[in-house]
Order: sequence, then structure tokens, then C-alpha cells
Amino acid sequence: MPRACAIAPLAHHQETAIQSRIDQKTKPLGALGRLEELALQLALIQQREKIGIDKPTLLVFAGDHGIAQQGVSIAPSAVTRQMVLNFLAGGAAVNCFCQANDMELKVIDAGILEPIEDARLIVQRLGAGTADLSLQAAMTALQAEQGVKLGAELAKAQAADGCSLLAFGEMGIGNTSSAAALLCAMTQLPTAACVGRGTGITESQLQHKQKLVAQAVQRLGQPHHQQHDPFTLLAELGGFEIAQITGAILGAAEAGIAMLIDGFIVTAAAMLAVRIAPRCRDYMIFAHGSAEGGHALMLESLRARPLLDLGLRLGEGTGAVLALPLLRAACAFYNDMASFESAGVTV
Amino acid sequence: MPRACAIAPLAHHQETAIQSRIDQKTKPLGALGRLEELALQLALIQQREKIGIDKPTLLVFAGDHGIAQQGVSIAPSAVTRQMVLNFLAGGAAVNCFCQANDMELKVIDAGILEPIEDARLIVQRLGAGTADLSLQAAMTALQAEQGVKLGAELAKAQAADGCSLLAFGEMGIGNTSSAAALLCAMTQLPTAACVGRGTGITESQLQHKQKLVAQAVQRLGQPHHQQHDPFTLLAELGGFEIAQITGAILGAAEAGIAMLIDGFIVTAAAMLAVRIAPRCRDYMIFAHGSAEGGHALMLESLRARPLLDLGLRLGEGTGAVLALPLLRAACAFYNDMASFESAGVTV
Repeated sequence: MPRACAIAPLAHHQETAIQSRIDQKTKPLGALGRLEELALQLALIQQREKIGIDKPTLLVFAGDHGIAQQGVSIAPSAVTRQMVLNFLAGGAAVNCFCQANDMELKVIDAGILEPIEDARLIVQRLGAGTADLSLQAAMTALQAEQGVKLGAELAKAQAADGCSLLAFGEMGIGNTSSAAALLCAMTQLPTAACVGRGTGITESQLQHKQKLVAQAVQRLGQPHHQQHDPFTLLAELGGFEIAQITGAILGAAEAGIAMLIDGFIVTAAAMLAVRIAPRCRDYMIFAHGSAEGGHALMLESLRARPLLDLGLRLGEGTGAVLALPLLRAACAFYNDMASFESAGVTV
Repeated sequence: MPRACAIAPLAHHQETAIQSRIDQKTKPLGALGRLEELALQLALIQQREKIGIDKPTLLVFAGDHGIAQQGVSIAPSAVTRQMVLNFLAGGAAVNCFCQANDMELKVIDAGILEPIEDARLIVQRLGAGTADLSLQAAMTALQAEQGVKLGAELAKAQAADGCSLLAFGEMGIGNTSSAAALLCAMTQLPTAACVGRGTGITESQLQHKQKLVAQAVQRLGQPHHQQHDPFTLLAELGGFEIAQITGAILGAAEAGIAMLIDGFIVTAAAMLAVRIAPRCRDYMIFAHGSAEGGHALMLESLRARPLLDLGLRLGEGTGAVLALPLLRAACAFYNDMASFESAGVTV
């Protein structure tokens, strides 16, 4: 992954024409609310007469985290691998949602502790779990760059295969600590605001987690300029799955396809991606507002408003899969709804 | 429609077993948020090992309103008929959404001004539009009862045909005035809080609309007891489509199937239905919080929290169709997601 991405700007000169097409549909102006915004964004991205969601694909990246040894999660690191096996066997929530919503699911081992032999698994391991980010850099600069590169290549390969909508999910015990540390470091917001209960830790575990995250961020010291270099942040505080998701976001934007951003960890990667190449923001659609408190801060910093608010706090990309039908509905009305003129409606 | 409905209570004694099944799925407790509530409700309604959304059907009822002559809407009454033709031709927003989400759409003429000859239209006309409810009863007591009966029979016929999920939509220029008047009369809330801009009237039109709605409600006088009889309210302030939707809600509940409630007008009918037979509330799933201000008051009075908030203000049942995939996802995880034991996950 070259640090400079070639992301095309949206065709903003077409915005008036697209909006006018939406406004001539047989409905009061603006009456389809967020779906009108979605149709506009997709039309700007796809620049074609009929917009569409082709081969929608969810990439779920898994990685383990050294900090998990410190008891910051309800589950031990072994559960990352068990859940990857569950994804491969089709038994997780995200499998059920993908099945119900006709979305393809691909699972990537970005660096879980113990490898899995399974032909269905995409293996691009950066290592056997990261180092403990509360004590030292989670990974080397080389691993971070390699992760971004692998993620970008995978996203571009999907686009080359005809996918016009990518979504991202993750699995990694301990990764809310990493995402919270990234949020802290990128926004300079207090640890207490950025660190949450993840999948449900106790009050004393939460305090311990906050202490460790604060320690990690302090370890970096003050940034030389306005903010730390995003690749440095990724290496110091990130995870192997976060590195690859960051790259996948950049790759999707370079390929010019829309993407669904969902969940606390993926949104941390989105923040990093926007710092690397701000234009990738234009290709992002935000799926679900996580019950994890820090997620709202991330969304605010990205000026993003998610489509759904269903109290999910599972990760895996579950919110993205649930938002997919809204994108399909936006395409359907944009492509097929009658205009006042064609329908003979006299408003 | 007999005034006493035979609606079965939910199987609440099974709640613990159903919740336990949900809690054993491979996810942290409660991590699927609203979808867990949905699965629980559907399992309580359907009482079967695998829950499901079979032949989901949207019934869109159309009717005209005498009050429309007073300029309370952005469009004239002729648009009701034009939009029914648009529904039949497949060109409206709701058609596109039904197509995208694999939902059947049936259109009912409950009493538009001028009939339409079309074999696809279900014709159960109560008249050629209601009387102006700001001046007199919108319809006779007989029409109101007949409307409820026809709606209930239609809903039961869908259930008998294998439909396990009904949704309701409407079209009727002027019907937000009727729904607002019903809200006012049922809650005794001030007109200003209950009356909104519908599909987008001006400030002076809004004031005029508020005056007419206040006049309509005052016409009824104070209720003798705590509240007016719902059939009286329906006849005085309702619409032909609202009468039939009220009946369809009662019919769906009598048939023991779940239903999606969406939009300002349908929710007014839901309030009436709950006043007629409180148990029907248990079968209701609320789809979308309308941008029409009074809708939030209706939801509050029904202790309901909608699944979606997308800024829609179109009616037609559009929000219900958009919520359907969430119900399918709830069924999918409930039926097919692995348990910790079956997946070998050690949390």
C-alpha cells in the first residue's frame, strides 16, 4: 500500500441532476428522508443510470490482542479462534444475517493466536496476535504497513470481481481496548469517554481497562504536530484486524465502490483511513450506532449519522448486514419509481 | 365485526424458555439488542420451534376525506386516485420497496372519491369519500362498523392463506387531519401538539388545519366517561381507510399473526384498535418513527418504540416494508444461530 492513495473525488457536478431526478419521483419533496441521501450518495459514487448493489460482500477480519491477557474482556483470547471456527461453520449471528439478507461473507485470519487449517479461510496473518499495547507497540511499523497493503489488495480484488458494496466486520478478544486507545489518541478526548464495557465487563474491569488504555496513550507522548501520524498510531495502538480493515477501506475507495462502516472497531479503522486519505470518507455509509459509548464520539468526529440504532453491541459487522436492505431499497426507488409526469400525478 | 374480539393472550409462560434459548446463542448476553426483543415477541406469537415470516403482505388502504376540500394538504383529493393508479402500475415508493424486500402488496379501495375499474384492486368501498369531519361526523356509525368488519375479514383471509406477517399502509389526501383529530380526542392533548405539516404544508395552512381539527374535536364535546367510545371516534373523526385498517389490526390479532404498524395514520388506527381490544397490542411491531410530530405522541401512548428512524414522511406503509428485513434477521438468528455448546465456544 503506497501511503498516497489514488481515490477519485465524487462527481459533485452531477449532484443537481441526481437530486432533480429524486425530486421528480411521485412523493412529496424529501419524504423518503435518509433513503434519498443514500440514493444520492450511491448515484454520485456509481455514476450510472441504474444504481445497484452487486455482489455485496462482508469481510470479517480476525486478530488477537496481547492486551487481552490483562483481563480487559469477558472472554479469553481462545474465543477469537473459536468464533472464527463458528463463522466458518455458519453458526454465528453474522452468518444468519448474511444468509437472511443475501450477502456474501468472507473470513480473514489477520493474525489470531493459533492458525486454522480451512480452505474457506483467507489467511493473511501478520503474526500470532499483537504485543500488549499497554506496555509496548502492538506491532512493528512494517506489520502495520503490510496489514494496510493486504487489506487494500483484498478489497480491490472484490471490486475487480464485480462487488459494488463492501462491508467490514471483525472478531478479536481485546479489540475494543485497541479501538478505544486509537480514539483517545486521535481525538485527545479523555480515556473515560473513549473506553466502554465492550461485550459486558464489570465496573472494576472497566476501571482496569481505562487505566491500561490511558497508559498506552501516554506511552506515545504528545504528538509533534496537530496529531500523530496514522501509521504510527496503527502500529502502536492497533490490531492486525484493524490494520487490514484500514487498508480494505482505502482499497474500496480506490476501487470507487461504496462501503458500509459498522461497529466500534471498524469505525476506529475508518478514522485512521480518513486520516491517511480524507477522500475515502465520501464512499462510506454508516450502518449502526453501537451501544459502546465511544462509538458516538467516533461518528461525531467523522460527521457521520448511522442508519440504524438497534442497541447492537456484538461487532462481526452485524449492523452492516442489517443496513444492507436499506441500500437496496434506495436503489430500487431511484431506479424504478415513477415520476409525477410518467405516473400522471398532478402535484 | 363483533365489538368483542377473541384475541388469544400471548404464551407468557414460555417466555423464560425462549429467553434462555436466545441467551445460549454464541454472543454476549443481550448483544443483539432490539433483534432479541423481536425474536422473543415473534416466538411468543408463533409458538413454534422455528419462527418465520411467511407470505409477508402489505395491505394499502385508500380513502378520500371531505376535509381535504378545505385546503389542509399540499395536494387535492384527485391525487388519492392518481396514487392508487400508481400503486397498481407499480410506480410508487412502496412498490419499489416491496419489490426490493420480497413483500406482497395489495391495494384496497376503502372509499376514494371516484371508483377505479381494475381487477387487481380490492374494492370494499364504504362510500365516495367521507364527510368533512370539521363540520359533521365523517361517516355513519354503520359505515364505521362495516369498515372495521371488512378490514378484519380481509386480514383473516390473508392469515388463512398462510400469511404470518401483515403490514398496513394508506393513501388518502387529508388523512393526517383525521389522524390528528383522533389523536387529540383519544389523548386530550392540545391540537398544536397533535397536528403537523403532513406532507409539507405552509405555516398558514398549518394554522388553518389546527383550527379545523380543534373544531372537529370540540364538536364531540367532553366524553361521558374517561374517554369516548372508539367506534364513536372512528365515525366522527376517522376515514374509510382508517376504519378498515383498525379492523385489519383486530383481525390480524384474532388470527394470531404478527403485524407491522407504521406511519401516523396507521398508528391512529392502532390506537383505536387497542381501545377496542387491548390484547391486539401484543401482536404489534412498530416499524418507523414518522417525521410527523404527533406520531411520537401516539407511540408514547402505545408504549411503543419503533425499529427505524429514517426521516420518512410518506405513508403508504413504506416504513413497514423497510423494517421487514429486521424481522427476517431476528428469525434467522433465533432459528439458526449456534449455541455456545454446539459451537464449542467457551464463554
